[in-house]
Amino acid sequence: MRINRKRLEESMERLGRIGETANGGLTRLALSNEDRRGRDLLVEWMREARLSVTVDQMGNMFGQRPGSASLPPVMMGSHADSVPTGGKYDGQLGVLCALEAIRCLNDHAVTTRHPVTLVIFTNEEGARFQPAMIGSGVMAGKIPLEDAYNARDRDGLRLGDELERIGYLGSEPCVPRPLRAYLELHIEQGPFLEEEHLPLGVVEGIVAISWSRLTLHGVQDHAGPTPMRIRHDALVAAAEVVRGVRSIPRRLGGDMVATVGRLDVTPNIPNAIPGRVSLSVDLRDPDDARLTRAIRMLDRIVKDAAGKEGVTYELEHYWRVPRTPFHADVVGAVERAAKALGTPYRRILSGAGHDAQYMAAICPTGMIFVPSRAGRSHCEEEFTSMDDIEHGANALLLAAAELAGR
Amino acid sequence: MRINRKRLEESMERLGRIGETANGGLTRLALSNEDRRGRDLLVEWMREARLSVTVDQMGNMFGQRPGSASLPPVMMGSHADSVPTGGKYDGQLGVLCALEAIRCLNDHAVTTRHPVTLVIFTNEEGARFQPAMIGSGVMAGKIPLEDAYNARDRDGLRLGDELERIGYLGSEPCVPRPLRAYLELHIEQGPFLEEEHLPLGVVEGIVAISWSRLTLHGVQDHAGPTPMRIRHDALVAAAEVVRGVRSIPRRLGGDMVATVGRLDVTPNIPNAIPGRVSLSVDLRDPDDARLTRAIRMLDRIVKDAAGKEGVTYELEHYWRVPRTPFHADVVGAVERAAKALGTPYRRILSGAGHDAQYMAAICPTGMIFVPSRAGRSHCEEEFTSMDDIEHGANALLLAAAELAGR
Repeated sequence: MRINRKRLEESMERLGRIGETANGGLTRLALSNEDRRGRDLLVEWMREARLSVTVDQMGNMFGQRPGSASLPPVMMGSHADSVPTGGKYDGQLGVLCALEAIRCLNDHAVTTRHPVTLVIFTNEEGARFQPAMIGSGVMAGKIPLEDAYNARDRDGLRLGDELERIGYLGSEPCVPRPLRAYLELHIEQGPFLEEEHLPLGVVEGIVAISWSRLTLHGVQDHAGPTPMRIRHDALVAAAEVVRGVRSIPRRLGGDMVATVGRLDVTPNIPNAIPGRVSLSVDLRDPDDARLTRAIRMLDRIVKDAAGKEGVTYELEHYWRVPRTPFHADVVGAVERAAKALGTPYRRILSGAGHDAQYMAAICPTGMIFVPSRAGRSHCEEEFTSMDDIEHGANALLLAAAELAGR
Repeated sequence: MRINRKRLEESMERLGRIGETANGGLTRLALSNEDRRGRDLLVEWMREARLSVTVDQMGNMFGQRPGSASLPPVMMGSHADSVPTGGKYDGQLGVLCALEAIRCLNDHAVTTRHPVTLVIFTNEEGARFQPAMIGSGVMAGKIPLEDAYNARDRDGLRLGDELERIGYLGSEPCVPRPLRAYLELHIEQGPFLEEEHLPLGVVEGIVAISWSRLTLHGVQDHAGPTPMRIRHDALVAAAEVVRGVRSIPRRLGGDMVATVGRLDVTPNIPNAIPGRVSLSVDLRDPDDARLTRAIRMLDRIVKDAAGKEGVTYELEHYWRVPRTPFHADVVGAVERAAKALGTPYRRILSGAGHDAQYMAAICPTGMIFVPSRAGRSHCEEEFTSMDDIEHGANALLLAAAELAGR
């Protein structure tokens, strides 16, 4: 039993046109009109595959294929939202490979003991609403539903209202539920598989992640007549923080990464000294203790930068997930699938957060990685070859079939 | 003959309500609906003062009081646009003090040989459309009219279209014209007058100014799985540039100021390595040769920062005005007015650009400064006391009357 590569490719192309950018990338922000159109198409495809479609209170979408016994389902899927000017593989690929695996079970009239369920999670990226992975976070009981509803985008729009606006505020309770397993195929988003010429990664877990937000308050003033000696420039302090954040991985060593990805200046005009700067700090490490040391270093860096420029600040470490180990049963099923297919693979740790991170808290979980060209993602240049995708989708199919009790 | 303080204060309050912010500041961007409402009120007041009102091709507004002879007018005024969350004194005060001076000439039925003209220039701030001082720049023949019309705001709206939309695209040619003098009252926007407890500054000229724009192109990628060793982060390079710009005045000494006021990150989300950063650099110095050296230092700083991070860039020094000395006749008239009033003053150089800078190219020009509390401007806390304003407005009145040949 193997997936239908041509059918998968056609689905990728069709869904990829919704929110496509001029350069062939994707802008399909969570709960935007493009997200709604993508969801509508996925519902249509799930119905065509004779799945029973439900939507929960967070807009997470499910398409269930019945099993022969009354048992918890094997769930597989990913998310369908993207970052702005992102690519067509992050998220979407995991959804469509899972759909293709189910279509393939249908083609071969395979009966499984456990039901097999396709899932599409809401707002995984965290590009529009923070925190990221909010749909799976609520489902895993880690984020209160009301907090999720009250998340607001930059224009002040509420997640709960936007869910309702696009018609995907479902009634199914968004709570932990019994699951045989959760399986997610995703692009690696890093360079390792490509560097080692391997088409497949058997993911053992996810690194620990911390998100912080910092607001620096300087004194807004005219850039001309204000002598340097009386300035308190929020952007000068922010620049010191950006430098300091870059220095953390160098100082701590290992595989830590540290990024300032968002930075907003007020009033942001050429002839005013910046009065306020807000920025984000993303820290990740395979080791929880080292991540804690990095956060303490960040505290110090911010304090010093603000003190040096005479500005005040608020620093909040508002989101942290510990290192997530995946379940031996699921990791083993993926490894057996790769071996059965004769696909070269390595075991790998994910540097990115995924919905699988939250799912691991409520059921046996695993992931499959396919390579990212030049390790690039969250950009229009994101690319994975169809050969690699075919290997990954077949591994997903075989692992899911094993876990569901073919 | 003295100005009517109460009438001036009432006009300040009334015009200050158009575009007023919740904290008592002002957001009245050039050619916005607020700007239109402010202009409508000024036209009403000019007509009440029996001025003949005209509007030129750049939306610069004029209200002329006739003289007894056919001679070039004495022009006085400023601008009525503001920066975002700016104050109620920058620009508006110069317009209203000039209007009050003319009302006062009317009150006393003073006949002058030269006509006296109130002017309100378009888009002085450069907050919405770049470059700044575009209305006086075109009038002085320094900026082509078509270039000004084609300036676009961040939403892509064209200056020419916005002038038409708000109904202030006039037909009078915007070209250099014979003028007896140009006189502008403005807040100092720096700390010197307050520090020295002086209510008045007799402005001798304006420092040299250079504006540059820089775009850094890094590699946009996912903040998690992308190891530090393969990153090309546009924001890390930008932070080095911000630091470097701050170091320029320290290295060159004197009264130089250097500011990065605007900085925009793409895609600007917590979990993407910034792929592109654009920023502004504002450099000012009393000495033209030192400003040139600063620009060469900036070139070097940007080259080094980009090289270190492995990013590419475009750097453009797109606007430069040399040091502007004001005319001895006009500076002298202001000084004589201050002496006649018994108002303590000092001679001072302006660190900010003003419409007077362009006007100095086509006629004898001078300026009057009134103190700024704590040197602050371009912010909601901008403040000048009515006592200081009264001193300034009276000096403007007497100087204008002398130049117009009372």
